[in-house]
Amino acid sequence: MDSLSVVILAAGKGKRMYSALPKVLHPIGGQPMLARVIATARQLQPAKIVVVYGHGGEQVREQIQDPDIAWALQAEQLGTGHALKMALPHLPKVGRTLVLYGDVPLTTLATLQQLLAVAEQGMALLVDVLPDASGYGRIVRNAAGEIVAIVEDKDCNPQQKAIREINTGMLVLPNERLDDWLGALKNGNAQGEYYLTDVIGLAVADGLAVPGVTVAASWEAAGVNNKWQLAELERQLQLNQARALLTAGVTLADPARIDVRGELQHGQDVSIDVGCVFEGQVSLGDNVQIGAYCVLKNVTVAAGSRIAPYSHLEDAVVGEGCRIGPYARLRPGARLAAHVHVGNFVEIKKATVGEGSKVNHLSYIGDADIGSKVNVGAGSVTCNYDGVNKYRTVIGDGVFVGSGTLMVAPVTLEEGATIGAGSVLTKTAPAGQLTVARAKQLTVPGWQRPQKLK
Amino acid sequence: MDSLSVVILAAGKGKRMYSALPKVLHPIGGQPMLARVIATARQLQPAKIVVVYGHGGEQVREQIQDPDIAWALQAEQLGTGHALKMALPHLPKVGRTLVLYGDVPLTTLATLQQLLAVAEQGMALLVDVLPDASGYGRIVRNAAGEIVAIVEDKDCNPQQKAIREINTGMLVLPNERLDDWLGALKNGNAQGEYYLTDVIGLAVADGLAVPGVTVAASWEAAGVNNKWQLAELERQLQLNQARALLTAGVTLADPARIDVRGELQHGQDVSIDVGCVFEGQVSLGDNVQIGAYCVLKNVTVAAGSRIAPYSHLEDAVVGEGCRIGPYARLRPGARLAAHVHVGNFVEIKKATVGEGSKVNHLSYIGDADIGSKVNVGAGSVTCNYDGVNKYRTVIGDGVFVGSGTLMVAPVTLEEGATIGAGSVLTKTAPAGQLTVARAKQLTVPGWQRPQKLK
Amino acid sequence: MDSLSVVILAAGKGKRMYSALPKVLHPIGGQPMLARVIATARQLQPAKIVVVYGHGGEQVREQIQDPDIAWALQAEQLGTGHALKMALPHLPKVGRTLVLYGDVPLTTLATLQQLLAVAEQGMALLVDVLPDASGYGRIVRNAAGEIVAIVEDKDCNPQQKAIREINTGMLVLPNERLDDWLGALKNGNAQGEYYLTDVIGLAVADGLAVPGVTVAASWEAAGVNNKWQLAELERQLQLNQARALLTAGVTLADPARIDVRGELQHGQDVSIDVGCVFEGQVSLGDNVQIGAYCVLKNVTVAAGSRIAPYSHLEDAVVGEGCRIGPYARLRPGARLAAHVHVGNFVEIKKATVGEGSKVNHLSYIGDADIGSKVNVGAGSVTCNYDGVNKYRTVIGDGVFVGSGTLMVAPVTLEEGATIGAGSVLTKTAPAGQLTVARAKQLTVPGWQRPQKLK
Repeated sequence: MDSLSVVILAAGKGKRMYSALPKVLHPIGGQPMLARVIATARQLQPAKIVVVYGHGGEQVREQIQDPDIAWALQAEQLGTGHALKMALPHLPKVGRTLVLYGDVPLTTLATLQQLLAVAEQGMALLVDVLPDASGYGRIVRNAAGEIVAIVEDKDCNPQQKAIREINTGMLVLPNERLDDWLGALKNGNAQGEYYLTDVIGLAVADGLAVPGVTVAASWEAAGVNNKWQLAELERQLQLNQARALLTAGVTLADPARIDVRGELQHGQDVSIDVGCVFEGQVSLGDNVQIGAYCVLKNVTVAAGSRIAPYSHLEDAVVGEGCRIGPYARLRPGARLAAHVHVGNFVEIKKATVGEGSKVNHLSYIGDADIGSKVNVGAGSVTCNYDGVNKYRTVIGDGVFVGSGTLMVAPVTLEEGATIGAGSVLTKTAPAGQLTVARAKQLTVPGWQRPQKLK
Repeated sequence: MDSLSVVILAAGKGKRMYSALPKVLHPIGGQPMLARVIATARQLQPAKIVVVYGHGGEQVREQIQDPDIAWALQAEQLGTGHALKMALPHLPKVGRTLVLYGDVPLTTLATLQQLLAVAEQGMALLVDVLPDASGYGRIVRNAAGEIVAIVEDKDCNPQQKAIREINTGMLVLPNERLDDWLGALKNGNAQGEYYLTDVIGLAVADGLAVPGVTVAASWEAAGVNNKWQLAELERQLQLNQARALLTAGVTLADPARIDVRGELQHGQDVSIDVGCVFEGQVSLGDNVQIGAYCVLKNVTVAAGSRIAPYSHLEDAVVGEGCRIGPYARLRPGARLAAHVHVGNFVEIKKATVGEGSKVNHLSYIGDADIGSKVNVGAGSVTCNYDGVNKYRTVIGDGVFVGSGTLMVAPVTLEEGATIGAGSVLTKTAPAGQLTVARAKQLTVPGWQRPQKLK
Repeated sequence: MDSLSVVILAAGKGKRMYSALPKVLHPIGGQPMLARVIATARQLQPAKIVVVYGHGGEQVREQIQDPDIAWALQAEQLGTGHALKMALPHLPKVGRTLVLYGDVPLTTLATLQQLLAVAEQGMALLVDVLPDASGYGRIVRNAAGEIVAIVEDKDCNPQQKAIREINTGMLVLPNERLDDWLGALKNGNAQGEYYLTDVIGLAVADGLAVPGVTVAASWEAAGVNNKWQLAELERQLQLNQARALLTAGVTLADPARIDVRGELQHGQDVSIDVGCVFEGQVSLGDNVQIGAYCVLKNVTVAAGSRIAPYSHLEDAVVGEGCRIGPYARLRPGARLAAHVHVGNFVEIKKATVGEGSKVNHLSYIGDADIGSKVNVGAGSVTCNYDGVNKYRTVIGDGVFVGSGTLMVAPVTLEEGATIGAGSVLTKTAPAGQLTVARAKQLTVPGWQRPQKLK
């Protein structure tokens, strides 16, 4: 078969989104709707992808940033037929063109492949069957079951009104006819627009078969015109993803309460409690357990690690067998070796933590290199910032950092050092020895407790 | 048309709520059910609102605290007809009376307006059509389609059993007939109660038309007799509110996971992640982003600010372009100027924070005035309480507070002061200078690490 | 009637669970599916419970750990008839045997009691009626309505295909026939397995009545073959539990967002906000309020206490009228007396806190005994660990611990002591006096602010 082009119509303004962002850039599953349509299209390995843009066009081109895409400007919104016409200069004279929509984000690859498979004469139409077809263009078939026309809702006779098979707008077209057909479209309708739908009639008149393929589910053909529809498709996408995870063996406490906005890779016996949110690229090793209400973005968690509830990890790496949280925050650049413990109300940023080390309570570790088997006591802080510059703290293997220690970077705690609780370290703490910086404990004689002021 | 009165029947005990709180005071959307019914009634601008109370009456009157309400005591629970009779002394002799129920909280204004519009002869009945009407009083109409009777479920003949149109109990009545009709009610039924329903028969006998209006959705007529029904209506209310937010252009990650218990105002391009809870009066400016699982109560967030997950804000003001959270807690009286950063495990109470200032890590700021461009290091605390009195801390513009600083209030850090990490400040830190209160770092010779005790 | 035995078939591998854990050990409601089936069976007070195990058998026996259970090994998976045969040596020659399944976890006690009640001749079959019965064994009844056969889906004639009554697999059998019937089963089918279903035909041939009982809901008969089905039943179980709580008068903000994995006891007027998770044994007294997104495991909360959002309590006891959270973490061994306040970013472990004491901000209290009316300031830490040993901190009644105090255990703060902010305590703070350990505040003359490094 001849080469395939895909044209994605993405010029709509999306007035009912009430947003400064062009409609097709609104995210679904963490990705602009248009990017998702492009990604699906790309899996068809087309020779060419053309995006017809219009409203907010520069913003769309900037956000999508895809060198393989050809961009066609539709300066005026004169209908879908007109939009496709704008793409014509980018299309080869032979082969087939699949028309998709930037605001119809959930069409599956399998359905599109099926559509292309039936387009033997270069033409095929994606349809749906609805319980209530009111408002949609009906598919009219002849006695032989062949599609002969699409009749808009308002033009239907009573018999046609009863038809429940409807047009989704997605279709395959033979490139060699496009010039003729698009040129022949008329805009003598209420909207004054050129409807792409009308090519069906032209194709039938030309004697071409227009086979139909029905979507596997209606959400494949559902478009987004407002935030309610966007939210509905978001939930559908999330449910689809949850089902795929479950089918692959991931345990989910509630398929209706997991959000994956990106890609979630996983090993065996991974379990995810209620309410977790995954963004970007997340990878969970075998036997990883994620507690309730965790948020993970661009994170790798190695086998056997457990993340307790309300942990927030971003751009971080967690080694094998770690215990993280609850209320642990790993910020970008946190890299934990195996068997590290990070406890509650602990923040770690741009820091490596060596094997078996523990930062269990109320601490801030930023810009630090921590060795193995280190224990950082509660309430410790790496003072990494002097108001203008940031400095690193280096903590050797086996160091015991007493609670409430302030490490004024740049500073080194040598291997095996012990730091007394409450010390402020401004210079090297030598290896294997106890270092303290602490005032003497005194009891004040004759002191009286404060009295309540009037 | 004559003046409108509204009578709200709110005397029911609500035995199956298993609660010390009178049924009509149980909250829905953060508001007692009765208060919500009153609020809807008030939008009809009636001349009078009468609440018939009974069980837990004083508690009801105290909680509602509305000077415009007339209260009628129904000391004994003798039926809806009897309840309305208790309200009679408060009603004018002319005009119309709308009867509502304190435990039917979600009837819409539009439906009630429609009901009043059809009550041309002073009478109208709100009905519903159910798939399964078992248990409900059926609406019997004559050949002309006019309502002629309500037949209770147990009194229905087989033909009536098949009727799916039912009585909601809400109705409009002509005041001039109330004395007669309510006086004519009989209690010769199984419950020994006076049913308001019976006035329909009396009206028809008097030759009055009883037009019916059908609710737009069944939840408009749904009453609450137990916590399950309360939870169902709570979810319906939340879904209605979510739909309204989405329609107005707010992005919601999941319409089934947002709770608004009060009023949520918003600008353009506001986005709200999963699981957020809003209470009281919350206002979100343009481009505000609220992360997952935030709880906001009586909060104003200005344009462009982002609140990261698990932040808890109450009676606080957030300026433009702020970065709050994750795990930030703003308590009553926190007032942040523009471009303030409040980071993880930070608590701010009764404190102003000036433009561009940052409190990024593990700190407690209470009873303080912080200038602009201040940096408060990790683990800092305003020691605002001496056990009996609270004092304020004042931090001037451009102050750098080193990590682990304890500010013993009342204390002032003058403009541009720098405080060394780990200092305990008990007196003024002078402007532009370095102030420290810190012990000398010492290494203890010959020290041995502790051994594991047997 | 004769004695009852229960045989639970639990030998399936559960290949589509993609797990190293045997299928019947996967938890539902926090409990292995098999344990839940055993618990239901036990409520029938059978003389004997036999579990037929196979795949992962030792792991199953170890996890279940129930001395009353008889274990029968099914080394090869040759069908349900073969599985029951493995249990025969454990069954008495008289009485009845109820056959249940380790992967059908939600059958109710009431339904099984009903099934046993109709098994007058020792035989009864649990059935379901489905909208679409495709794939299931159909129940064939004679003109008198008696069950005469089960016909597998693939063997159904068109008339039988239309039957919507199906076999659930659960049944009651008369022990005296088991030897004969199970010996007579043939494996001449596509799977080469011995089907227990075939005993129905044998029973009918023997002239026994096979009365059927229909499950109250399809989830009672639903089995788990993959994680999707497990998640569906988990949600059904949670919804059932939520409904039971609501019916008993607990207020739930959202019945679809509560997870109870164990037992939740409650007093009157308990209210639970969205997203809470309860594990193990949790007991909530009268008027307890649980805020959004709390996680409680093995916790007792006495009357009138309020737990604010994001609190995480495990193996802890909370007295009356306490205020906990938000972001409070009570770890194992935390025992709070009445009217204790534990605030944000506070961790308490193996510690008692006396009546009216407060730990309101950013503190770690571990291995401590705190008296009554104590105030622990923000950022305080019990330094309970020297790297190898743990020691206790003792704080007497009425002590005021200034903010940022580090208590180096073992250490005692005697009754009524006051500790100055920022002190490191290494020895006893005497009763009623002020103790401080603090460096002098100095301002450094001529100091210059750091400059940005190139």
